[in-house]
Amino acid sequence: MAKKKIGVLLSGCGVFDGTEIHEAVLTLLYLDQQGAEAVCMAPDIDQAHVINHLTQAETDETRNVLVESARIARGEIRNLAEVTADQIDALILPGGFGAAKNLSEFAFKGPDGAVNNQVQQLLEAMITAGKPIGALCIAPATVGMALKEKKPLLTVGSEEGVIGAMAAIGVRHQLCTVDDIAVDETHKIVTTPAYMLGPGIKDVAAGIEKLVKKVIALA
Amino acid sequence: MAKKKIGVLLSGCGVFDGTEIHEAVLTLLYLDQQGAEAVCMAPDIDQAHVINHLTQAETDETRNVLVESARIARGEIRNLAEVTADQIDALILPGGFGAAKNLSEFAFKGPDGAVNNQVQQLLEAMITAGKPIGALCIAPATVGMALKEKKPLLTVGSEEGVIGAMAAIGVRHQLCTVDDIAVDETHKIVTTPAYMLGPGIKDVAAGIEKLVKKVIALA
Repeated sequence: MAKKKIGVLLSGCGVFDGTEIHEAVLTLLYLDQQGAEAVCMAPDIDQAHVINHLTQAETDETRNVLVESARIARGEIRNLAEVTADQIDALILPGGFGAAKNLSEFAFKGPDGAVNNQVQQLLEAMITAGKPIGALCIAPATVGMALKEKKPLLTVGSEEGVIGAMAAIGVRHQLCTVDDIAVDETHKIVTTPAYMLGPGIKDVAAGIEKLVKKVIALA
Repeated sequence: MAKKKIGVLLSGCGVFDGTEIHEAVLTLLYLDQQGAEAVCMAPDIDQAHVINHLTQAETDETRNVLVESARIARGEIRNLAEVTADQIDALILPGGFGAAKNLSEFAFKGPDGAVNNQVQQLLEAMITAGKPIGALCIAPATVGMALKEKKPLLTVGSEEGVIGAMAAIGVRHQLCTVDDIAVDETHKIVTTPAYMLGPGIKDVAAGIEKLVKKVIALA
């Protein structure tokens, strides 16, 4: 049987301005351990900004989301613009602020901000094709914004502000421990709080492994 | 019992000019799963260069090893200059070209190149204190250079050029599969080939988990 191809949509390289690195690597680990093929992708756009991860100060640098995401993917990455839903069996979005700064404007403008066009199109195409979507940490907020018409069920951790923002656009929220997943069986959307709850890498790993297995099972 | 504190010496963030991200994250995962505390550290120096990981071309950017390493450590990282051997129970060096470009000059000048002074001092202090050292992928080359007087036993994968370079400075080499470790019991040095062999993340994960367990057992 051919390996299932699971898209992994990255948003940079680093928790404060890009993809949360641990969440992305653990996603890749569990996909490989489950016999699936990861198809890494990212949009070819500038990051919203660059954060010095030592000081948390914004810098005056400009970095490209696709180029920085390639660090996590060891160079094996595709331009999101060239990926279509028929090429993959499922799509997973690791978290990190990049998922809410570069893939959408959630971190800056809340749930009424825009979703990146390419991200929006691919998420809609996956839903239309009945293919599963997984999202970790804050990434479910962007998924919720893109698919709000569907009133999806998802988890974004336990912060009242984030939960309220989802409720404001009709997204249904489910509280969930870090080692567990929320499953919207109707829309095949699987989410886990990851570092929205933490606290440590072994804790988020448990939920991510469960998410990867469920996404593959639904694919 | 207090958690064992295991130093994790990073060298940037990305396989071609810094730390190999998967190897670092898997090291952090297995340390946490084994109940050890990771103490991430990196030198506060400029990277030897910056590589665009999408094109593999060198760029004209300047990036700092400590600042970029902080991306992997989610900001929880110490300046190597301020870390002493009495503060940690063992030290692990993930691989990636950064370990042979930023921690030493191995990638540019071979085994006669210099080792970063702070790296040299900490490695010597660990050996003197009888505390274990773990090294992944190409990082054992830098460990071998720093400790060549000891004629350590280690693995650097299967590339003849790298093995020959180690032999030239008196380092003893042991071939080792990616899911296994080479152990120098005398000096408490544990090494695994990781992405020197690969091919995939689940393969390197097996060797890294074994390395982490052995390093903790020796600490």
